[in-house]
Amino acid sequence: VATRTALGSDLEALLTSGRVLTKEAVFYLRDASRIEAPMPPDAVVLPGSLGEVEAVVRWAYRHDVPITPRGGGSGLAGGAVPMDGGIVLSLELLRGVRDLQPGAWRIAAEAGLTTAHVQRLARENGLCFPLNPGAAEQSQLGGNLATNAGGPRAFKYGPVRAFVTGVEAVVPPGELVTLGGAARKDVAGYDLAGLLIGSEGTLGVITAAWLRLLPAPGARAFLAGFFSSGEDLTTGLLNVFASGATPAAVEYLDGGALAVVAPTFPQSLGSVPTSAAGMILLEVDGSMESVIHERELLAEALGPAVLGEVIWADGPVTDELSTWRDSVSSAVRATRGEKMSEDICVPVDRFGEAVAGTVEIGHRHGLAACSWGHAGDGNLHSTFLISPDSEAERERADAAAEELFAMAISLGGTISGEHGLGAMKNGYLRKQWGDTAIALHRQVKSTLDPKGLMNPGKKLP
Amino acid sequence: VATRTALGSDLEALLTSGRVLTKEAVFYLRDASRIEAPMPPDAVVLPGSLGEVEAVVRWAYRHDVPITPRGGGSGLAGGAVPMDGGIVLSLELLRGVRDLQPGAWRIAAEAGLTTAHVQRLARENGLCFPLNPGAAEQSQLGGNLATNAGGPRAFKYGPVRAFVTGVEAVVPPGELVTLGGAARKDVAGYDLAGLLIGSEGTLGVITAAWLRLLPAPGARAFLAGFFSSGEDLTTGLLNVFASGATPAAVEYLDGGALAVVAPTFPQSLGSVPTSAAGMILLEVDGSMESVIHERELLAEALGPAVLGEVIWADGPVTDELSTWRDSVSSAVRATRGEKMSEDICVPVDRFGEAVAGTVEIGHRHGLAACSWGHAGDGNLHSTFLISPDSEAERERADAAAEELFAMAISLGGTISGEHGLGAMKNGYLRKQWGDTAIALHRQVKSTLDPKGLMNPGKKLP
Repeated sequence: VATRTALGSDLEALLTSGRVLTKEAVFYLRDASRIEAPMPPDAVVLPGSLGEVEAVVRWAYRHDVPITPRGGGSGLAGGAVPMDGGIVLSLELLRGVRDLQPGAWRIAAEAGLTTAHVQRLARENGLCFPLNPGAAEQSQLGGNLATNAGGPRAFKYGPVRAFVTGVEAVVPPGELVTLGGAARKDVAGYDLAGLLIGSEGTLGVITAAWLRLLPAPGARAFLAGFFSSGEDLTTGLLNVFASGATPAAVEYLDGGALAVVAPTFPQSLGSVPTSAAGMILLEVDGSMESVIHERELLAEALGPAVLGEVIWADGPVTDELSTWRDSVSSAVRATRGEKMSEDICVPVDRFGEAVAGTVEIGHRHGLAACSWGHAGDGNLHSTFLISPDSEAERERADAAAEELFAMAISLGGTISGEHGLGAMKNGYLRKQWGDTAIALHRQVKSTLDPKGLMNPGKKLP
Repeated sequence: VATRTALGSDLEALLTSGRVLTKEAVFYLRDASRIEAPMPPDAVVLPGSLGEVEAVVRWAYRHDVPITPRGGGSGLAGGAVPMDGGIVLSLELLRGVRDLQPGAWRIAAEAGLTTAHVQRLARENGLCFPLNPGAAEQSQLGGNLATNAGGPRAFKYGPVRAFVTGVEAVVPPGELVTLGGAARKDVAGYDLAGLLIGSEGTLGVITAAWLRLLPAPGARAFLAGFFSSGEDLTTGLLNVFASGATPAAVEYLDGGALAVVAPTFPQSLGSVPTSAAGMILLEVDGSMESVIHERELLAEALGPAVLGEVIWADGPVTDELSTWRDSVSSAVRATRGEKMSEDICVPVDRFGEAVAGTVEIGHRHGLAACSWGHAGDGNLHSTFLISPDSEAERERADAAAEELFAMAISLGGTISGEHGLGAMKNGYLRKQWGDTAIALHRQVKSTLDPKGLMNPGKKLP
């Protein structure tokens, strides 16, 4: 067994020069969550080939050294943070485009390609990779798969799983495996590609994927409406479902979140009514004809419940509106300096209860609370505002989060709709799944990773 | 250990009276494939409750008795045929609608509900369950999930996996497990629901599912075009991909298949040109506006390559056209009395090679061959015509099928796009997957079903 101190030089012998970082690797101690590595990793490796990924996993598995696979580090659950030292295996240099077939609506690409890069390649070829999980210039394809990333357009298009026809991965004890491929349908074997998707690096290291793409929509636009109460917001949401239209995204801000970003609402679209206590923001896409048709259906659906007029936005202002929507998270954090945000997801017919429940739970713990997110999927970003200097507030927020999870589960939902459990909620699956399901989960983990070296401290019950 | 003869009375003690069939169960010896049970099952059970499913699986697991789960018996791979005696467990009495929420585009239903029943419930509520895998009045929801059924509209909507947000199943040694549920997104645990989907009853018995539904499209229509050669057919297909439209279904008939059903082509749409050597049939759906728009795009795309005019069909004639399309399989069988049909699936850019290769392989083995199916997904129903009385032809067809599989794999495709392996291709996964992937497949099987009692003789490498 290699000692942890000898690890760096052993790894250097396996990899091209310069691809093992041991000192200057502070960047790799964090992701976009508040989780911090309890100790620095022994080494950060940046394999430049499949052979190097295999060699590292094989070496680590032989020497009982933990591996933390890492994509762009934009995760919100600590999934890429090393919790037990060992090796951080960053896929950032594996960014080859293996096969781009615009005529067959398909791309095969390596894990380190950024989401934005995949989107650009699709766009430049008249196609579309609609997934928009956030941090597009930072997040990578491998990380998207490892977390089964979602985002606003998952409402119409599904999470990344819906686009994947094949996965290539290195699994313990260090072997390359190809599951699926370029064919759009394949039921020959068990869906082991699907098993790796969303497994947060705890079963293997995803190195490449085959993706279905779609024709680029001819038009894209937004509709928005403000509401004077949470009840009206919920009515508006249900009216969207009853409209007959299928928006690409059905987003919302509750009263608290809206109040924070109201001052920066795009001026050309008017201003947020002072009595607004919620907002729905719809994205529609498709042919120009269908966008116009859906605009009518959706404006009619939202109309009766909104304060004032339904807002319609197309052209350049849609970018401004997207940027504004994306600013919610950091603006909400800024109000008290820190926040604790959880991505619970509930059946859509329980959405109103979850939004009201978030505020109520915060109130009970003496914390301002708000939520926003993907209303159409019932996926809230339920947020408690805290001061970074107050240990007491953090403790109250932790207690509030526990109640939030219990509420999501009691409404028939889940503790994570899209961020994953990572280190943040490691162990929490027990709250949600029954004993038999938990036992299966454990068995699958120990079958694929018998030594428990793949991303330890993450996701497991 | 119970002897097989004592099995009937033991089971009768577990189930409501009349739900154990031992003699009159010949119906359960076959499905829609040519596979025949080598021996009759010891008992056929029709559990009427979850508790009865659990009791049967628990009893069988305790006594080492194989279980063959069964849906509607419309499978084409022998998946529901008992290969080793034991118990056939039919889900036909479990057909409760647990939760229908039209306002949230959702249904939860039990495994025995027919596909047509689910479609009707959706339609009656202004919604749509677009999956159309064939045999809608016979096939059941559980079987659809167990095979990850596809069909024509999988092109736009994906196979059944794309609609499932939760699965309930009884897994060895007889415990009920719920994986996922009514929430539209959930990344808390591994995708064990996805693992059961497409596992063909070899990992557990699916008892219920939660499905996402969609708003009913306002319009639906067909476009069709005939081609004078396989090359033109392939050109037509690629032009559809380049059109910018997203048809619901992209179907085809090659020259051989078309010749068989040309005489019964719906008269109101004209007749099949005598020089036709292939056909593409597109289904478009959506709002009236978008259907009209896609009609223009697709007619323009097909136009240059077709013989004569592009055919447009809406209204009642679309039903006639669907029925005609669905008649291909039995009409082709009738030409020589029997056929051997395989559902290979290849990357779309290799479609033309697979269509030509099918005929060429048949020719080399002295067999007439043709294909039809889901061109947009690269999913062929490659078919060799044989006489039911000729053992020699059957042997040649078996040899031809081997070459067909090798071709599909060499083109980067799969030996089964939608039917599954069942008993028909049991063991064939080895041809397609690498050693490491095969080892994982085996490990997953033995983890979930350590005694190997779930649907033995099916799907495994």
